[in-house]
Amino acid sequence: MGREAVKPYNTEILSVGTEILLGHITNTDARDVSELLSRIGINVKYHTVVGDNPERMRACVENAKQRADILITTGGLGPTCDDLTKQILAEAFGLKLVRNEDEENSLYDYIRNSRNFTPNNLEQALLPEGCTVFHNRWGTAPGCAFQAEGKTVIMLPGPPGECVPMFRTYGIPYLKAMSEEEIVSHSVRIFGIGESAVDWMFADEMNAMTNPTMAPYAKECDCLLQITAKAKSEEEAECMMQPVISHVCEKLGDYVYGLDVECMEEAVLPLLLEKGKTFATAESCTGGEIAKRFTDLPGASVVFLGGAVVYTNEVKARILGLDPGMIEEKGAVSREVGTALAERIRAVTGADIGIGVTGLAGPDGDGVHEVGTVFVAMAVEGKTYVRALQLGPKRTRSFIRRMSGNHAFDMMRRWLKGLPVEPEG
Amino acid sequence: MGREAVKPYNTEILSVGTEILLGHITNTDARDVSELLSRIGINVKYHTVVGDNPERMRACVENAKQRADILITTGGLGPTCDDLTKQILAEAFGLKLVRNEDEENSLYDYIRNSRNFTPNNLEQALLPEGCTVFHNRWGTAPGCAFQAEGKTVIMLPGPPGECVPMFRTYGIPYLKAMSEEEIVSHSVRIFGIGESAVDWMFADEMNAMTNPTMAPYAKECDCLLQITAKAKSEEEAECMMQPVISHVCEKLGDYVYGLDVECMEEAVLPLLLEKGKTFATAESCTGGEIAKRFTDLPGASVVFLGGAVVYTNEVKARILGLDPGMIEEKGAVSREVGTALAERIRAVTGADIGIGVTGLAGPDGDGVHEVGTVFVAMAVEGKTYVRALQLGPKRTRSFIRRMSGNHAFDMMRRWLKGLPVEPEG
Repeated sequence: MGREAVKPYNTEILSVGTEILLGHITNTDARDVSELLSRIGINVKYHTVVGDNPERMRACVENAKQRADILITTGGLGPTCDDLTKQILAEAFGLKLVRNEDEENSLYDYIRNSRNFTPNNLEQALLPEGCTVFHNRWGTAPGCAFQAEGKTVIMLPGPPGECVPMFRTYGIPYLKAMSEEEIVSHSVRIFGIGESAVDWMFADEMNAMTNPTMAPYAKECDCLLQITAKAKSEEEAECMMQPVISHVCEKLGDYVYGLDVECMEEAVLPLLLEKGKTFATAESCTGGEIAKRFTDLPGASVVFLGGAVVYTNEVKARILGLDPGMIEEKGAVSREVGTALAERIRAVTGADIGIGVTGLAGPDGDGVHEVGTVFVAMAVEGKTYVRALQLGPKRTRSFIRRMSGNHAFDMMRRWLKGLPVEPEG
Repeated sequence: MGREAVKPYNTEILSVGTEILLGHITNTDARDVSELLSRIGINVKYHTVVGDNPERMRACVENAKQRADILITTGGLGPTCDDLTKQILAEAFGLKLVRNEDEENSLYDYIRNSRNFTPNNLEQALLPEGCTVFHNRWGTAPGCAFQAEGKTVIMLPGPPGECVPMFRTYGIPYLKAMSEEEIVSHSVRIFGIGESAVDWMFADEMNAMTNPTMAPYAKECDCLLQITAKAKSEEEAECMMQPVISHVCEKLGDYVYGLDVECMEEAVLPLLLEKGKTFATAESCTGGEIAKRFTDLPGASVVFLGGAVVYTNEVKARILGLDPGMIEEKGAVSREVGTALAERIRAVTGADIGIGVTGLAGPDGDGVHEVGTVFVAMAVEGKTYVRALQLGPKRTRSFIRRMSGNHAFDMMRRWLKGLPVEPEG
């Protein structure tokens, strides 16, 4: 079981858990592991989910052995009798499960401090012979990796708070060490034009490229260009990519909001820190979505002072001091109310930037505006900008709320970078 | 291709889309379709995700034909050359694609009103001969269903806003009509005790049951018991289940927060409406999560007046009038500040119920409290309740925030139902 240089292609993620098949749990592990793999240029070809059933699991593992070079499992490593992943994988590759002393000691430590001791907890210290152990600093069940029969197997625990950091910390370096080539990938994140427009802009170039390569992808409310290069070293791969990234960013201009970030708020946080600016939000139709998304980011508290969620006209008046007569006259969904929300939350909190959002997220209308009508306002020193959005009545409530948030973050990003805030017209 | 009574077992969901394999998009379609299927007692045995690659798609379809009776596809029905699902499924079952006149006319209507016309849009009107067409009221690409070679195939579009309502509207009735037996399922949603405790409480009964059956499942921050019955008619199945549901609800008592709901806030909304009560939130560590979750529900505005997200001490003072001296003395993360947040937001908004949350969601601590320390307070007429939570330093920021929200909703639910608010001690 040496560490040969296996070509890092054809990867399958096999997630084990009846809860996923019942729709009780979303398979975020497969998504997050895939995203981490794509960054080192490893292509995932299949996701499979199977229940805690030995026969079906065995068949899925055999299937994966046929069609994949790298098999990554998530789930089924815990101490209950449902948890069969290690047994079945070891069996499939003709390996014994052996007791790992370090893991056993660490489990003893855990058990000593736990009310929930059961003897089967120690089963977790049984691992395939000769494997590389991934100690679980985020929970109890250890993960592992091994190579056998020309395949690479990685087993990760199911809880996302354990699976993802374990894969990042141990799995990615393990896979990178296997390859003689370094594959590096960057994603250019784009807001304001769609995937098909990006595709159209770069179609000829993309068709002519072999290394690096480039491909556009759609996300729910934005899109991205993924650029990937292979080389003998990471440095060389990075060098090959730099001119491509520069060219793409130049051609896309202001539409590019970040490199290798997950979402717009992740691009806005460092800009706020860099410029030493704070912000606050007053949300009507987004109902706290913008504050919630921003405060999902650790460290948000340094620049985010707070916000108000103001659903009723009375609360708009009481918390933010909006003039009830003005709301009555202009309507709760109006440019004027959006502006007042942004300006008042800025004044009340003393933030540098005030964001105000009012609109109709649906499904019900107000008899005046179409569902999807949203006013997003940003008040800064001396000026208030407003975007009047028509996101379309066929869109879901969740899309309308998320897209409105993206526009708020886009306006902040543009203002913080000294770009025109209103390319939307 | 008659509509025989196929046993509704062994279902596979095959999702088509390279974006899912790259981790750019979460496969929520598979989750939502699975959840809808589990409610009519259809067991999903596999989820598979494959990219927009004809060869691999063909192999996955063959594989599904071997191991499943019902194959549901999501994605790949659009007009671009990537969208291969219909061609490959028709081919796999020896069916021709034929032009559907109704769908073609409806596409012409769409195209006439659209700037984005391309001739390949009409490709979407090609459908497998003899299929049942699912007209897409939520987008453009129609879905469909057919039976062939003893298998049932349903094809759904990929965008969640089209896939899920189409499956609910057409797919579920199509599948229900296939079976001579009616299978009905209910889920009893539980908060306050874990899945293993529920398992332990009902283990003997569950082992002895055959029809109805019962099984406990864990979700991220709560759990549920799923009860399923088969009978000649829906009414009969419901009758068989009623005593089981009553027994379970009696034995679990206050821990049951709802029947067939998706989340705690969905159980709280009708209670607020029924009692004619309003609420408002003042959130520190949850950063708008509670307001955001509640306003995800259509109709939330009737009972939710608004809220404040108060990250800094200054904003706590400015928006809610908290005494800065008190915050200084007791600390921002304290029972006193939680209480004051709840009481002040109640006073400021005039709501019947004020919710206040302060705590440490991590990853960084404050040097005083452990990460996962959260005070959730609820102010109602004449009294303020506080739960002091220790959610554990190994938990993720996202778990701590979500669980804190669940506690807030649980306190509201209990108070609205006249139950003791403090079973947590």
